[in-house]
Amino acid sequence: MLTLYHHPFSPSSRFVRLVLGEYGANFELKAVNPWERHREFLMLNPAGTVPVLIENDGPPICGPLPIMEYLDETRGYAMGDRRLMPDHPDRRAETRRLVDWALRKFDDEVVGHFVRERIYKQDMPRSVGGGEPDSAILRIARANIHHHMRYFGYLAASRKWLAGDRLSFADFALAAEFSCADYLGEVPWAEEENVKAWYARVKSRPSFRPLLAEKMLGMPPSLSYADLDF
Amino acid sequence: MLTLYHHPFSPSSRFVRLVLGEYGANFELKAVNPWERHREFLMLNPAGTVPVLIENDGPPICGPLPIMEYLDETRGYAMGDRRLMPDHPDRRAETRRLVDWALRKFDDEVVGHFVRERIYKQDMPRSVGGGEPDSAILRIARANIHHHMRYFGYLAASRKWLAGDRLSFADFALAAEFSCADYLGEVPWAEEENVKAWYARVKSRPSFRPLLAEKMLGMPPSLSYADLDF
Repeated sequence: MLTLYHHPFSPSSRFVRLVLGEYGANFELKAVNPWERHREFLMLNPAGTVPVLIENDGPPICGPLPIMEYLDETRGYAMGDRRLMPDHPDRRAETRRLVDWALRKFDDEVVGHFVRERIYKQDMPRSVGGGEPDSAILRIARANIHHHMRYFGYLAASRKWLAGDRLSFADFALAAEFSCADYLGEVPWAEEENVKAWYARVKSRPSFRPLLAEKMLGMPPSLSYADLDF
Repeated sequence: MLTLYHHPFSPSSRFVRLVLGEYGANFELKAVNPWERHREFLMLNPAGTVPVLIENDGPPICGPLPIMEYLDETRGYAMGDRRLMPDHPDRRAETRRLVDWALRKFDDEVVGHFVRERIYKQDMPRSVGGGEPDSAILRIARANIHHHMRYFGYLAASRKWLAGDRLSFADFALAAEFSCADYLGEVPWAEEENVKAWYARVKSRPSFRPLLAEKMLGMPPSLSYADLDF
């Protein structure tokens, strides 16, 4: 049995949910508000961050990259053609580079700001930084997203999937980030038709359905969010 | 033949140099100032960051984690007992968690600030953010380091090496970060004797020697930096 500690709008948590869905794994979700720093959760992950995965009575697997490698090591071979990690070390490095780009660089410069300012801060008490979104930070994130869109557009135009010929972890890492920004209507899809077409293909996979059904109280999703032909 | 694009005081680059040394690999170093964003280098790594590793005519392997996995995949088995990645997926996940803690969390909250403010900014033109260190940022980094020291002290007291019974990538990731902070005299070693003893053991390895010989023009290292019995 797998248990995933997550936050519904944490892009890294969504990445793991998508991958678990693709790998056909049954899992139980436990929602965590990372800013609350519950003692019980800090015992699992001293960094206090989600996602954390636990298999049976095993130790906590902390963070999206260790979880990705763990799932590939324990289940990858059994997936055959549908394995999300390529076989050759060079191609694996390219997949990991793009996972890192999505979950770290794109998140640090764009999506993390949107999620924190527009979602997390609504639920956070003022004492730990909650409150109204900081419009200066949102302006920076909205400026940064154009550079990323251009790079993703280049990749989407020159490859079938993000990291090459085959669907890989990189597609789900980037799609997880996009899904959070798209919920908030913050993705300028019209700028890059190839990115939009790539995202529509990833979004139409069954593993995506639970995410598209996710709603945040008091903040309905953008019109394009759950629309597979947006 | 391996070529490593690096910066001498980039902790992630130092991590790769240490690992290459441990794995007995011959490599050529090419120094890069990441803030210069040379076109030629951006063609290798569109993120513009170091380290980047190239093997023969292969594609660039970008970033410390993809490089770590690549070296383990291409050379790990041949290392036998001296392999820096454990065999069991649970232990591998713990190693990766701590590599991530060192190169991301500790770097983001502490060492990256020291390096940027006190080293990079000396060489950066003012037009891209160079100049005097920002004392407010240094104050934050100096406050943050105590929390990290306590956690590393807990690990060093309860384990032989950082991630368990055996020397692993995690030891070199953290030691690489410490080496940059220690050059600047920014590590409060007296607070955690166990961390100091652990670092002395890692630092005395032959793979560390090239780093300890590295000097920055106009900024001599702290007295403890190259002293193996500091």
